[in-house]
Amino acid sequence: MNFCSVCGAKVALRIPAGDHLPRHVCEACGTIHYSNPKMVVGAIPEWEDQILLCRRAIEPRHGKWTLPAGFMENDETTAEAAARETAEEACARIEVGDLYSLINVAHISQVHMLYRARLLDLDFAPGEESLEVRLFREEEIPWDELAFRSVAMTLRFYFEDRRERRFRFHVADIRTPSHIAAS
Amino acid sequence: MNFCSVCGAKVALRIPAGDHLPRHVCEACGTIHYSNPKMVVGAIPEWEDQILLCRRAIEPRHGKWTLPAGFMENDETTAEAAARETAEEACARIEVGDLYSLINVAHISQVHMLYRARLLDLDFAPGEESLEVRLFREEEIPWDELAFRSVAMTLRFYFEDRRERRFRFHVADIRTPSHIAAS
Repeated sequence: MNFCSVCGAKVALRIPAGDHLPRHVCEACGTIHYSNPKMVVGAIPEWEDQILLCRRAIEPRHGKWTLPAGFMENDETTAEAAARETAEEACARIEVGDLYSLINVAHISQVHMLYRARLLDLDFAPGEESLEVRLFREEEIPWDELAFRSVAMTLRFYFEDRRERRFRFHVADIRTPSHIAAS
Repeated sequence: MNFCSVCGAKVALRIPAGDHLPRHVCEACGTIHYSNPKMVVGAIPEWEDQILLCRRAIEPRHGKWTLPAGFMENDETTAEAAARETAEEACARIEVGDLYSLINVAHISQVHMLYRARLLDLDFAPGEESLEVRLFREEEIPWDELAFRSVAMTLRFYFEDRRERRFRFHVADIRTPSHIAAS
């Protein structure tokens, strides 16, 4: 951030009075510009013993598989975001169930949330951001070709819970960047 | 938003290619400026059969009571945000427990999350944003003087669960602005 989005003057990075963190502050109009973490919300669409994954047509992780999920928008609820993202990325209709995982990815200032969901029919298709959309049985999951660690973590929780026939809500943290975690 | 925070040129509100919502787009450098919901994270600090509330020294709802909570910052987890806000608003040290409630407040594009927490000692005091901090038994809760509906909702869930001796995770939505809900 270089310029004030309200008045167009230059901003300076400094700690405002009564605050404890540096913020972009406009030297002309005084506006304090805050930057906060974002929510990435999605679904685990279930059809019998299978779940729906999308192969990404966009960066990051073009060509890798993921659960339908994306940045939550203003004026919607987390469950509405999960349904919208599933419609956009997989052209699929779901009944959103319980919130299943909440995963902090603090080093990129994101919180990922995945809902359990019931796929309502088999009329799914790749949306603009997907190359391919298909159902997977547990033994078919492309573990080495998953796009994001939060998705892999959620799917591991999911199949473990399913074996135990008891789904519970999971909160977890991913603490290191993936290029460090992978080394 | 009137100006591009990257280059200082004027922005226009339009739907970018491949998108479905209007965004502030810079006509000069092409940057798309997204606006997303924010997380407000806090704690229910417990001490025996009492919980800690703070009386607000700031707007909105100056003088009203609330659980210690505030906007989540970049580079922290939700649990870290709950502990930090409790330290800032009540000068209190807690051991953060399970995530207890997640409440969508879609008309103001916020998601509120409250954690159960164990107060570690009684050396609490009002922080800069609080007029007063004290412990309340259930029968002492100032229900008509609570600052936010998400706090009232969380406390109702909490005391109901406590009576049933079974705390579970609650997800709920607050759908209407409070001036409509109150009328």
